[in-house]
Amino acid sequence: MRAEIVAVGTELLLGQIANTNARWMSESLAAIGVDVLHHQAVGDNRQRIVEAMRLASTRADVVIVTGGLGPTQDDITRDALGELLGAPMVRHPELEEMLREKFRSFGRREMPESNLRQADVPEGVRYIRPDRGTAPGLAAELPGGARIYAVPGVPEEMVEMMEGTILPELASASGGGVVRSRVLRCAGIGESALAERVDDLFSGSINPTIAFLASSGEVKVRITAKAATASDADELIEPVADEVRRRLGDEVFTSQDESLEQAVVRLLAEARRTLACAESITGGGVGARLTSVPGASEVFIGSAVVYTLGAKTGVLGVSSETLEGPGPVSEECAREMAAGARRVFGSDLGLALTGAAGPESHGGAPPGVIWIALEGNDVAHARGFQVPGERDRVRRWAEQAALDLVRRYLEGRPLPASDRLI
Amino acid sequence: MRAEIVAVGTELLLGQIANTNARWMSESLAAIGVDVLHHQAVGDNRQRIVEAMRLASTRADVVIVTGGLGPTQDDITRDALGELLGAPMVRHPELEEMLREKFRSFGRREMPESNLRQADVPEGVRYIRPDRGTAPGLAAELPGGARIYAVPGVPEEMVEMMEGTILPELASASGGGVVRSRVLRCAGIGESALAERVDDLFSGSINPTIAFLASSGEVKVRITAKAATASDADELIEPVADEVRRRLGDEVFTSQDESLEQAVVRLLAEARRTLACAESITGGGVGARLTSVPGASEVFIGSAVVYTLGAKTGVLGVSSETLEGPGPVSEECAREMAAGARRVFGSDLGLALTGAAGPESHGGAPPGVIWIALEGNDVAHARGFQVPGERDRVRRWAEQAALDLVRRYLEGRPLPASDRLI
Repeated sequence: MRAEIVAVGTELLLGQIANTNARWMSESLAAIGVDVLHHQAVGDNRQRIVEAMRLASTRADVVIVTGGLGPTQDDITRDALGELLGAPMVRHPELEEMLREKFRSFGRREMPESNLRQADVPEGVRYIRPDRGTAPGLAAELPGGARIYAVPGVPEEMVEMMEGTILPELASASGGGVVRSRVLRCAGIGESALAERVDDLFSGSINPTIAFLASSGEVKVRITAKAATASDADELIEPVADEVRRRLGDEVFTSQDESLEQAVVRLLAEARRTLACAESITGGGVGARLTSVPGASEVFIGSAVVYTLGAKTGVLGVSSETLEGPGPVSEECAREMAAGARRVFGSDLGLALTGAAGPESHGGAPPGVIWIALEGNDVAHARGFQVPGERDRVRRWAEQAALDLVRRYLEGRPLPASDRLI
Repeated sequence: MRAEIVAVGTELLLGQIANTNARWMSESLAAIGVDVLHHQAVGDNRQRIVEAMRLASTRADVVIVTGGLGPTQDDITRDALGELLGAPMVRHPELEEMLREKFRSFGRREMPESNLRQADVPEGVRYIRPDRGTAPGLAAELPGGARIYAVPGVPEEMVEMMEGTILPELASASGGGVVRSRVLRCAGIGESALAERVDDLFSGSINPTIAFLASSGEVKVRITAKAATASDADELIEPVADEVRRRLGDEVFTSQDESLEQAVVRLLAEARRTLACAESITGGGVGARLTSVPGASEVFIGSAVVYTLGAKTGVLGVSSETLEGPGPVSEECAREMAAGARRVFGSDLGLALTGAAGPESHGGAPPGVIWIALEGNDVAHARGFQVPGERDRVRRWAEQAALDLVRRYLEGRPLPASDRLI
């Protein structure tokens, strides 16, 4: 089964938002074995919406339109679908009642009458009742035989209808065949260094296929197989995943498609160890990432964000000799910060990050220089390195390297040494 | 001038990445007055790339393709462009030399011969020399008269060629006419509550147009005008922006298209005040956002991320009476945390956030309950509220509300009271 996604909204064409709906929908469709071959995005223009739907219906078995179902005058996906089908709009009293009821339950003033446009559905088109939002989804069969769905552009409302209605219907309609993926994630290694180690596997791959995906401080290797059943697909994936893992060794932080912070929280919980941080360059980013994981409070005690020299001394006890000598971006400072975090929070492990994020130098260190340190009863490790790029990228690399240092320590892997440049 | 963006990459269709290139390119094109009417995305399939280029060339004056210019076998945008133009591939010795030189300067082992594909250019096509990366961009005129450009999919390399070559060429080719936007940003108010106050301006708007854009805890109102010159466009925008600002009043945190954290850092610097935070629910997110702003070290001293009861008491001096009585998610706890942050870091202002992010209740508070407090010589304000939704959304709202509380205080605006629900 081939699908095509049509995103509607002038805000996409003006670049005000990224088309994250298409990403989520594509990933969800792939997971049930539906191939997405095209994305389109068009503005809030009736003729172009109709043309986009029509084109999609000539080359896909299912067309999913997202956006343009809201209550405002520029929400015209309903009308465009009506035009494509040659069907007049019909107001549904039960939707009208639902809208009035939702407004009452929101505790809001009277509903603007213009909102009733959301109760209009092209004749013969099925609607999908909204739970979170107010805009009904739409479902129809087009003359050429393709199915078409329209869902709201608000991500939560789109997800609700995809998960509640559309994905189950498509999974059932597409009958056999599933696509399964295994993702191995690596931190602290560049894409090409990694690609070189598995290049020969990649170039010959058909089923399963192997793909690389690099972002700041992280590389994903995704192994994807198609088969009649999930277990058949897994059997295709398994030997390739094993081989990739054998070649990449210590670099792989997970094969469970979990984030680096999730892996660290899981490993800390398994080892029954607690962690506290001392953050300068990242300003709290490591704590924010660790606490994004539900249950982090079992293993994460806190973080001392010490952005000034005075805070480093006053809160964490970094010595004035260190700040005046090697300076705030140094191995000594990182080690003292890690020890300080451990002492202040009473944790098993202390993790520290200091550096010059840029654009200016900081404490005598040029932009991109980072020092991280990990301190515990049986570990005292520091690592310095330099990352090229902008402030955000440098901070992200600092977070990745620090979290990955904890991961390597907890897994009993060799800890990386200082290096000139990543 | 009408433009169309064609993104190439199976990873887009598998939902492994969002099409952020299309967003950035669209925004940049709008800024020089080029209308983007369609986005397409296709996979690494030669026939579909050719078809997408051909379709785009029938309805746009300029087609910009991104992706598929790398060295691997699935990078086939070069070949697709050659097919579209009916032009054979020609290897350019100067590009070959550039590739070898780049590999040497990266300090890497010998260059794989397959990389030389990047030195191939369809006959008669101009190439754009890469600075950061290794893939040259391509530029050509199509038989129907449309221009076509191809740039790499790696965002930094795409940006380099857009800014260095393509945008200047298009700005010069499109001659007159500019599009200017003014964005008013509001925090702590829902989209529909805001829309109601300016709905009549919106519905009648043609030039300038008014658009709303809501995300968690923030609403943008964008006023966009087209005119012959920038100052003409600004003159169209000015009265509308004034009227929107008059109606939205205290809710607008900026009209400079700066982020909330940038506005707070700016206001702190203007007032010569320093800030420290005490974060529980957000885990360091407020500190991370403030320190994402270059120069934050002038006004931001640090943040005590206190994720456990012990850390709240030990680091910030929250009383055991408070933790055992009203609990860690309470007005009392927030106030004591704010006072503690101010004391520990020696700052002018202390800002505290505590709450239950979910999915579990925390300290007797159901998910979504948030308390924030601001403490200083002339301010002692606490606010409690509840936010529906997932963990990430709740944390984001907490950050927004806390930063906006500082903003309102520094601007001398009324501080928001506690309310049941946002």
